[in-house]
Amino acid sequence: MGTASTNTAKPAMRESLIAAAFQLFLERGYEQTTVDDIVTLAGVGRRSFFRYFPSKEDVVFPDHEQSLADMTAFLAASEDGDDPLDRVCDATRLVMRMYAENPTFSVQRYRLTREVTGLRTYELSVVWRYEKTLGDYLRTRWADRRDGTLRANVVAASVVAAHNHALRHWLRSGGEGDPLAEVNRALEFVRGTWDEGRGGGEGGGVQGEETEDVVVVITKRSTPMWRVVREVESSLGEDGEAPRRS
Amino acid sequence: MGTASTNTAKPAMRESLIAAAFQLFLERGYEQTTVDDIVTLAGVGRRSFFRYFPSKEDVVFPDHEQSLADMTAFLAASEDGDDPLDRVCDATRLVMRMYAENPTFSVQRYRLTREVTGLRTYELSVVWRYEKTLGDYLRTRWADRRDGTLRANVVAASVVAAHNHALRHWLRSGGEGDPLAEVNRALEFVRGTWDEGRGGGEGGGVQGEETEDVVVVITKRSTPMWRVVREVESSLGEDGEAPRRS
Repeated sequence: MGTASTNTAKPAMRESLIAAAFQLFLERGYEQTTVDDIVTLAGVGRRSFFRYFPSKEDVVFPDHEQSLADMTAFLAASEDGDDPLDRVCDATRLVMRMYAENPTFSVQRYRLTREVTGLRTYELSVVWRYEKTLGDYLRTRWADRRDGTLRANVVAASVVAAHNHALRHWLRSGGEGDPLAEVNRALEFVRGTWDEGRGGGEGGGVQGEETEDVVVVITKRSTPMWRVVREVESSLGEDGEAPRRS
Repeated sequence: MGTASTNTAKPAMRESLIAAAFQLFLERGYEQTTVDDIVTLAGVGRRSFFRYFPSKEDVVFPDHEQSLADMTAFLAASEDGDDPLDRVCDATRLVMRMYAENPTFSVQRYRLTREVTGLRTYELSVVWRYEKTLGDYLRTRWADRRDGTLRANVVAASVVAAHNHALRHWLRSGGEGDPLAEVNRALEFVRGTWDEGRGGGEGGGVQGEETEDVVVVITKRSTPMWRVVREVESSLGEDGEAPRRS
């Protein structure tokens, strides 16, 4: 856990630069640290720094490029039979795994990002790229649907918001607990809202401890769906939460 | 429509600076235009520019601060009986109205934003502030709900995504058509997903041109809601789109 990432195939010099940068950011602050300071501590030249990082901001987020590439490759490897919603949820978990690999580093970076406006802006652009990557995939998968683009954009935003909710909660707690469990819970919430069923037997075969009463709903054809759902939920004695696939 | 905005109570000098800035941005490009160029064309001093705009980027988005303030005030004026989802949808329409007030200016800015990375980043931070404003309101309103914070974050992201979907579509079309109608359609999509019913009589009284057939759905208590919805939708001959309140 001594280095900034446990990913393999990363040059040692890159890792040294990240470690040196974070040591200085924590000691004297981000704004007060220059690239010269970083390369001096790491014992390398300025050109080595810029070989790995286009700017000082980039050394704060050293793993996002790889993570975006991993997400893109993962989605590109999808098959037609894959459920698109499952797929974007799984793709999002890849990002959380990156953070979870090194809690100390993730928490340090989070604190830094909250203090420095420029880093916050940088992070927003990274989040936007993740959302766009998920949205591009969903738009393609739902291209022949009415409202497919709108649905893709809204679902991508929902998934990213759920991921960031879980991530932020974990980072604020100082990296305690299992962030993967948190993101799973948040993604289930989104999935419970958007999942329309996948033709297979899952879900329909769920057996809980509840009784197997039959619920009969009678409604007019013109009744809006939200009202039908409400009616069914109230028959079921639920509290109005989005449905879970438990 | 000759000036950059039809809002009242804006000093003429501010309007002149915006008009001069956009004339130059369009003529010679954003990067190639300096603040000195803008103030020379507008016939005022540098200090006048910075009295209204902290930076050159800010003159590109002159109305967002006011729009954010309007949104915050609108949400703060909410009453306990207001449906939170309705309220954030209405708050989002305020932003669309700002764009719709001056289509030419909005489209020019959109093209500029797509060309200049710095402006794109600036815009992301503005979008984030809108989302945070909506999220703060929803978090307060849903504070006593299980999953209230998660729900607030996901719904705020969904509403913003729907708004931006409609806005982008309108801007790409060159500002043709009615953006308010587009945003209403997009917000209905989100509302159809998240609306849990509001106790009032709206919706239930909707009368369409469709026949008033009665639909009977029989389901087991343990059936997941998505499957019930799908069943009702397929009875209604819909294509699985989120329900509309027509």
